[in-house]
Amino acid sequence: MTEQLVGRIGVESLTRFCIEAMMRVGVSAHDAKITADALVTTETWGVHTHGTKLLPGYIRRLKGGGLCVDNPPTVSSEGPAWALVDGGSSLGQVTSVFAMRKAIEKAKSAGIGYAGVFNSCHYGAAGYYSWLAANEGLIGLSMANDWPTVAAPGSRKAVTGSNPLAFAIPGGEADPIMLDISTGAVAGGKVYAAQKLGKPIPDNWIVGPDGLPTTDLSLFPDQASLQPMAGHKGYGLALLIESLSALLTGAAMTYNVGFWMKDDPSTHTNHGAAFIALDVEAMTSLPNFYGRVESLIQEIHDAPKAKGSERIFLPGEMECDKRRIALQDGIDLPEDVRMVLKEMADLLGLKYEELG
Amino acid sequence: MTEQLVGRIGVESLTRFCIEAMMRVGVSAHDAKITADALVTTETWGVHTHGTKLLPGYIRRLKGGGLCVDNPPTVSSEGPAWALVDGGSSLGQVTSVFAMRKAIEKAKSAGIGYAGVFNSCHYGAAGYYSWLAANEGLIGLSMANDWPTVAAPGSRKAVTGSNPLAFAIPGGEADPIMLDISTGAVAGGKVYAAQKLGKPIPDNWIVGPDGLPTTDLSLFPDQASLQPMAGHKGYGLALLIESLSALLTGAAMTYNVGFWMKDDPSTHTNHGAAFIALDVEAMTSLPNFYGRVESLIQEIHDAPKAKGSERIFLPGEMECDKRRIALQDGIDLPEDVRMVLKEMADLLGLKYEELG
Repeated sequence: MTEQLVGRIGVESLTRFCIEAMMRVGVSAHDAKITADALVTTETWGVHTHGTKLLPGYIRRLKGGGLCVDNPPTVSSEGPAWALVDGGSSLGQVTSVFAMRKAIEKAKSAGIGYAGVFNSCHYGAAGYYSWLAANEGLIGLSMANDWPTVAAPGSRKAVTGSNPLAFAIPGGEADPIMLDISTGAVAGGKVYAAQKLGKPIPDNWIVGPDGLPTTDLSLFPDQASLQPMAGHKGYGLALLIESLSALLTGAAMTYNVGFWMKDDPSTHTNHGAAFIALDVEAMTSLPNFYGRVESLIQEIHDAPKAKGSERIFLPGEMECDKRRIALQDGIDLPEDVRMVLKEMADLLGLKYEELG
Repeated sequence: MTEQLVGRIGVESLTRFCIEAMMRVGVSAHDAKITADALVTTETWGVHTHGTKLLPGYIRRLKGGGLCVDNPPTVSSEGPAWALVDGGSSLGQVTSVFAMRKAIEKAKSAGIGYAGVFNSCHYGAAGYYSWLAANEGLIGLSMANDWPTVAAPGSRKAVTGSNPLAFAIPGGEADPIMLDISTGAVAGGKVYAAQKLGKPIPDNWIVGPDGLPTTDLSLFPDQASLQPMAGHKGYGLALLIESLSALLTGAAMTYNVGFWMKDDPSTHTNHGAAFIALDVEAMTSLPNFYGRVESLIQEIHDAPKAKGSERIFLPGEMECDKRRIALQDGIDLPEDVRMVLKEMADLLGLKYEELG
């Protein structure tokens, strides 16, 4: 491996690389740019499980035809504060950005806006879309369903997807307060990363084929399922997300959602997703709101620390810190991501070495 | 204690008792009926920590003037799909029902509706309000902030309230899918119930004065705080709830919220809350939606069971089962609730014995 492959990789360079990879399989420059921005922004936050390592899976479906390059998302029906978006099996990122922009547009005229999505695919990091809303001074929420990988309390196999939920609260001069969580005990991506790296996992991540806790990584995902976050709480939230993303939108539900990483790449996955935006400015003045956000942040920073703890982070604060460093010094991609990108580059005839 | 006090108590009888108690301290029949319905419905679900045992605390504030009997909630500002509601320091239930009805009204015209609340008080079970929406064929969400009792990861004392989150998905002929959770590891009410009953608690419920886990119940709430649900996830969700309930509405935040159970009863607590409704019928046909809900329920019921497990429950299913029994046979109130109601009856000159 050359020296360039172990140093930090520039944000622009990585973005260009991703755009080039997608364009090689027929994605328009416009759509490739949107998708690359979502993936690379996620990398800048240090969320490497949901960044560029997803790209080879998308490329596989783009080549197979399960992801379309010429069928852009459209609004299939809408009202004053809502829209249903037919993703047309375009890249999940393209459809999700389109839908979040629609939710923002509705919120700007009605105060709150909901955009529900069907015929989409895996959308990467949920938090990217809520962050888009916060960048425009709106509160954003983002969620999606997926092929089941998470057991319910009392079930032997998976019942829901790891259905992520994200939000972002705009902070004005301050960083947004933002969270992006799986409703499983951990994201499936973390289990795959542990598999790839051969790292052991604790016994509260997955259940084995009898529905009881196990640490045997090799069982996942065929013989094992993720545990839900906080038991019945995560299970319940996963069903809320399933409802807003799929029950209401007409997207596939549970096992009818395609397994984007492993299924026949010529098939459409029909993922669902939901985006909600609230327009702060419709309800209060932005300076007043930002003042209140800053005061909340200050209060939490100033709160007395637990024994052994030096700092209390706001949700998203670590990610924003990492992003500042990444924008300046480049991204320190972990080994598993580098390996995946190198393989993809070889496959597409791209020069991975020029990334450095 | 007479025999009547240990048997099941009829729903109508308990409702009348609560109405009478509130009317004794000046609450209108209209408001007393709304509040009693919220408290007693919660009892029928078996959620005894958030039912009628809250009433003596409300009575104390009603007598002290911190809760007003003649200052009904009003819409302070509104738009096509949103409203901000000034609770006027009326009973939290009265304001919250008013606000959820407003969110429903907005949703029926715009597809989705948000009602944010300030100048409210403790609102009991979050799930009552989302259930109201589901009863009308809408998806409902309900959340509220509260005086801090939950620590953040790394904090020594509480940083957020146990900020509850509830939702309900209408099921047509089927029970609604509904969840009502604290974003703390457990609801504060459960810790108080354990204190009252002298029951031990596990070490993942609270942290002591050093911010580390403890099982010493006597420390709560002055020297101990609840742990957040699933660590940073519950902490993050609590801040989302704080944002929609208070940052956006102008309600008090964190330690500026009154501690309704213990503070001077002449003061207003200025709790915030938020209600969101989505009108299913605006986006799809109700029969189609209900068919999809029923198919989801069936799939979960039919999923293979974990070793040792006999049934997989939908969120809210146990509560709906209990409610059917309660409506037919009465409510089996636990000892701590009975004690509290008896004390209150004595104080107000009500005949608790006639409840049976």
